[in-house]
Amino acid sequence: MNQPATSASDRPRPAYSAWLGTSNSITQQFMAIGGMKDVVSLAGGLPAAEFYPVAEIAEASRKALERWGSAALEYGPIEGLPALREHIARRISLQAGRQFTAANVLLTVGAMQGLDLIGKVLVDPGELIVTQTPAYVGALDGWRPRQPRYEPLDWGNGSPEALAALRRAKFAYAVPNYSNPTGALVPTAARQALLDSVMETGTWLVEDDPYLPLQFDGEAGPSILALHGRMEPDGPYAGPVIYLGTLSKSIVPGMRVGWAIAEAGMIQTMALAKQSSDIASSMLTQAVALELLESGIEETHVPRIVAEYRHRRDVLCASAARHLGEWFEWETPPGGMFVWMKARDGAIDTDALYQAALREKVAFVPGSVFDPAGLDRTAMRVNFTRSSPEIIEEGCRRLAAAVRRYLAER
Amino acid sequence: MNQPATSASDRPRPAYSAWLGTSNSITQQFMAIGGMKDVVSLAGGLPAAEFYPVAEIAEASRKALERWGSAALEYGPIEGLPALREHIARRISLQAGRQFTAANVLLTVGAMQGLDLIGKVLVDPGELIVTQTPAYVGALDGWRPRQPRYEPLDWGNGSPEALAALRRAKFAYAVPNYSNPTGALVPTAARQALLDSVMETGTWLVEDDPYLPLQFDGEAGPSILALHGRMEPDGPYAGPVIYLGTLSKSIVPGMRVGWAIAEAGMIQTMALAKQSSDIASSMLTQAVALELLESGIEETHVPRIVAEYRHRRDVLCASAARHLGEWFEWETPPGGMFVWMKARDGAIDTDALYQAALREKVAFVPGSVFDPAGLDRTAMRVNFTRSSPEIIEEGCRRLAAAVRRYLAER
Repeated sequence: MNQPATSASDRPRPAYSAWLGTSNSITQQFMAIGGMKDVVSLAGGLPAAEFYPVAEIAEASRKALERWGSAALEYGPIEGLPALREHIARRISLQAGRQFTAANVLLTVGAMQGLDLIGKVLVDPGELIVTQTPAYVGALDGWRPRQPRYEPLDWGNGSPEALAALRRAKFAYAVPNYSNPTGALVPTAARQALLDSVMETGTWLVEDDPYLPLQFDGEAGPSILALHGRMEPDGPYAGPVIYLGTLSKSIVPGMRVGWAIAEAGMIQTMALAKQSSDIASSMLTQAVALELLESGIEETHVPRIVAEYRHRRDVLCASAARHLGEWFEWETPPGGMFVWMKARDGAIDTDALYQAALREKVAFVPGSVFDPAGLDRTAMRVNFTRSSPEIIEEGCRRLAAAVRRYLAER
Repeated sequence: MNQPATSASDRPRPAYSAWLGTSNSITQQFMAIGGMKDVVSLAGGLPAAEFYPVAEIAEASRKALERWGSAALEYGPIEGLPALREHIARRISLQAGRQFTAANVLLTVGAMQGLDLIGKVLVDPGELIVTQTPAYVGALDGWRPRQPRYEPLDWGNGSPEALAALRRAKFAYAVPNYSNPTGALVPTAARQALLDSVMETGTWLVEDDPYLPLQFDGEAGPSILALHGRMEPDGPYAGPVIYLGTLSKSIVPGMRVGWAIAEAGMIQTMALAKQSSDIASSMLTQAVALELLESGIEETHVPRIVAEYRHRRDVLCASAARHLGEWFEWETPPGGMFVWMKARDGAIDTDALYQAALREKVAFVPGSVFDPAGLDRTAMRVNFTRSSPEIIEEGCRRLAAAVRRYLAER
């Protein structure tokens, strides 16, 4: 990464920044693979495109421009379209059981930009993030330019070591609902224990909640933001939770509309960081998102995709049991987008398996990219939302062929 | 900036990142002022909203969703909608007189994100940027989280000192066309001299060109990218220029569609950095932008706004000559959005004048924010594109009242 090309006539150019020496292009690779017709991609965290509400979005676009006119085509406010901030504040107030206002809401380019801004606002090189491990690769990517250190998050026992880690950290990072990559649902008691630890040690807590709408078996637990709301229901929100949400999983990713909820000072500081990233998000997509939310689209659309995703999860788990059960084990995720398959034989290296899989024209995400240290090669993340049941089954057959090829060649 | 609020029940939280201690919220302030009905804002770099082509954008939105369907609602590719990358590549090939391909194009959230990504990709703390001075405040904001040092850019004489500065720098930053904040047009000979120096010393050259469409008197010079194209017309582009463009000034800012043009390795590296900022830009706004460009909207729309902006510039300069000429002097800018007014009396402090101006309900941008050192308080940037001629005249009257108030009170 540190040898830029130069043209014939001029001198070698300066090197890239240091963090690029440690980066990976895995997401870029997956998005490229997604465009290859003959590869079965069980890699990305993508919704099923055939369910995207195209007609509803066309209608929402028409209405948004009729309603807002040139105001939907302006720069900022940096913090986002005020009416959408208010809508999100009302929604989160209902979910969390305490009042939030627009001052607690920053609209972002997906939840991903929220992660980037938190890194910009809180992390200087070498500082500590305590993270749920394995951790969302996008979060690790987002923070890499800030060059943090990591320690694993201990959810619940409040041990002296866990408290000491939180005390040293700039923030804790958690995905309590159907985590990426594991699909795990964290029990309410563990959420409360983490919140108590964070309150005791005085750190920030980033609660990343993109998968909340994708509940297959039973309900998601209360958010940590809601647990804190119950403890301090009155006055302007002043707690330690920075909550991230998005429309990318429940409606479509391509509008790039997400939000951060936090105490007002943190929101203003994140807005200052956002100004230096992109001045402001598109008012047009925010105005379209507002129309969609006000139309109640989620009430009809989300149950429809949840039913289909539940079926696809079941197809994946059943097919994997037939084709991959000899080598991998997993827990059936109660929601989300992924099954986290762990090798029964610790000698299986999923980085190497990934290369064999590409030759069999199937892709997954090797577990190492979710390890802050990049070392754990014993698992793989398999997506079940993007592909049809038939393609998922074909993908499992190819994965089995890839395992056989890998075992034969290693 | 380094004392986050905390709720009653928990401990003080960790401090914000170091760079926030040096940041300013001037853009945030201006965008807020823009929403105050009784303040005449000559501050922001905003187009005239009454000319936004709302109906054309509504039609383009309809067509884009009809043409692309769910593909306009997907994540990425990170690099942007391929058809729009190709369109921009053809456009820049015509402008620069050598061939560029989609591999040379990264679509960004306005040109601002291009600046942010260049900082992420090239700057580690303490490294040197050589910049045209005074410099665009957004660029300084964008690079602040990377904590660079600055030295001023010497355009043309190729002195040993200037070459030594370039040799030490990660990149040079220039706005040759109607610069922000000065409105200056850099002569072609100076552009060529800078290019020659950059080729000799081996650094990157960031050419930021948002104001290209806003030509009032005569034409903009050839871009530095085009000058380099003439020197090396064949083969894949491998030169040192990173060129930034945008639709924010020629059509509307609120779609947030801009682009970077560079050699393919730099584009891939900036894409990697973009992935860690926001995964990808909105496909929807990119698809709408493509419809607008293919419809040839700029051929009718740009001449219309240019005629009006030329008139507004003339109104501002005439009114300022009457009301402010006693205290300020300026060159009439041949394009762009701003007049850079320098105090005749070096004892006028435009930071202090700004406070007096707010009390007179008029806003400009104090020159200090365009100085990398934040010290030069002898000038102010005045915008003429956003406000009607009547409002511009009223703004000049209020500015004169503010100067009198300032002189009386200091």
